[in-house]
Amino acid sequence: MPRYRITIEYDGTPFLGWQRQAQGPSVQGALEEALFRFSSEAAAVRGAGRTDSGVHALGQVAHFNLERAWEPFKIREAMNFHLRPAPVVVVDCENAADDFDARYSATARHYRYRILSRRAPPALERNRVWWLPITLDAAAMHEAAQALLGRHDFTTFRAAQCQANSPLRTLDRLDVSRYADEIVVEASARSFLHNQVRSMVGSLKLVGEGKWRPRDLKAALEARDRTACGPVAAACGLYLVRVDYGRAADTGTEVAPDDD
Amino acid sequence: MPRYRITIEYDGTPFLGWQRQAQGPSVQGALEEALFRFSSEAAAVRGAGRTDSGVHALGQVAHFNLERAWEPFKIREAMNFHLRPAPVVVVDCENAADDFDARYSATARHYRYRILSRRAPPALERNRVWWLPITLDAAAMHEAAQALLGRHDFTTFRAAQCQANSPLRTLDRLDVSRYADEIVVEASARSFLHNQVRSMVGSLKLVGEGKWRPRDLKAALEARDRTACGPVAAACGLYLVRVDYGRAADTGTEVAPDDD
Repeated sequence: MPRYRITIEYDGTPFLGWQRQAQGPSVQGALEEALFRFSSEAAAVRGAGRTDSGVHALGQVAHFNLERAWEPFKIREAMNFHLRPAPVVVVDCENAADDFDARYSATARHYRYRILSRRAPPALERNRVWWLPITLDAAAMHEAAQALLGRHDFTTFRAAQCQANSPLRTLDRLDVSRYADEIVVEASARSFLHNQVRSMVGSLKLVGEGKWRPRDLKAALEARDRTACGPVAAACGLYLVRVDYGRAADTGTEVAPDDD
Repeated sequence: MPRYRITIEYDGTPFLGWQRQAQGPSVQGALEEALFRFSSEAAAVRGAGRTDSGVHALGQVAHFNLERAWEPFKIREAMNFHLRPAPVVVVDCENAADDFDARYSATARHYRYRILSRRAPPALERNRVWWLPITLDAAAMHEAAQALLGRHDFTTFRAAQCQANSPLRTLDRLDVSRYADEIVVEASARSFLHNQVRSMVGSLKLVGEGKWRPRDLKAALEARDRTACGPVAAACGLYLVRVDYGRAADTGTEVAPDDD
């Protein structure tokens, strides 16, 4: 059966999250319905990351099989036609090898977290940023963040309901930058635990407003205790930017699913 | 009577435009209602640019008088409280001189126009960009655009209903750049005619897709004929980015209202 790989962009606001569920709209459900409408095949769409409700994607990746072979561009066009008016689009579709798995073949995941740090709430970026009407020291946040790089037990920054077998992850990048009123956090790893990025950002916010010193973040990591984590950052500031496949830069890291 | 100057950000999507009108919601109407709710004063809010329906602002400027003197930050906070849930926010409020006029004192206006050039429609940037599922040559667009700089009769790029006394304007900047799938046009002038930016962008699009050579844009300008203009670009791609006050860089240009 031909396998296809798609790259997807979505606004997470109206969805209960990536994963299909009976209670309401999901990104996976919208994609599967669009696939069915044009192909009459009930294919399962498997994504690289199971994003939570309100979390956005610029470059989520998923795969599925269809009985019938199609030109990939026809799948993209047909899915986009049937996805409307849901804010989900297939940016790219290509043929994939039989053993390609969007979740398990991924060698790196890149997330972005956007904070709007100003007194006035967002008008144009509503539901697109975490609005904090306080001043944040981005340099202090960046400095503190560097202590989380490398391979660690991230139990502190892991949701209670996280289903991963191990709390060990290797964090390759956690950069904090300021662009005018906006603070942007760029996080990269082979895989993340459930809520890991939002948990790290929530704790970095405490550093940014001076409630934590940079070394308090390191102490929170070393506590390996969920209660040592700062309040989790809002879902609407998080974006799954890109997923990489192919040879992993760090061959020492485990092949693991992403649960953020 | 104390005069105040506010800087405003808005999502133009749900509004019939800047200007107050009986038929439906306007940005000016929303601001005047918010002012009234907290001050009980029916003040007129005068803006630097009368943006059309669907056009956004990152830094629109307006002024108004109130009988009572307030701390400017209290006005900002109170207006933002009463503006909710409309996607309009007062980013800044300050005291202004009695002769400050948001429209007539402006010495430069800066607009941005965003085009998404890719096959897939926008998901996250819906109503925020002009989606064109075609390839555009940004370098050719930029080259052609330079012929419009300087003082000209912009009759070709002026809406039929434009109320300005003269079609003469001095265009100081018209830069076209590409950022991945996005083409961004930055336009600056002391003032613009009604629909001038969208008319220029609509014609630049013809250059970008190869239907016009760069010299055809210059010929369209020189025709001084509205029918020589390309189709006007969509409102949702246009942003009023900033308005400058103080000494004009080009003292040869007229003090004129903005009507784009």
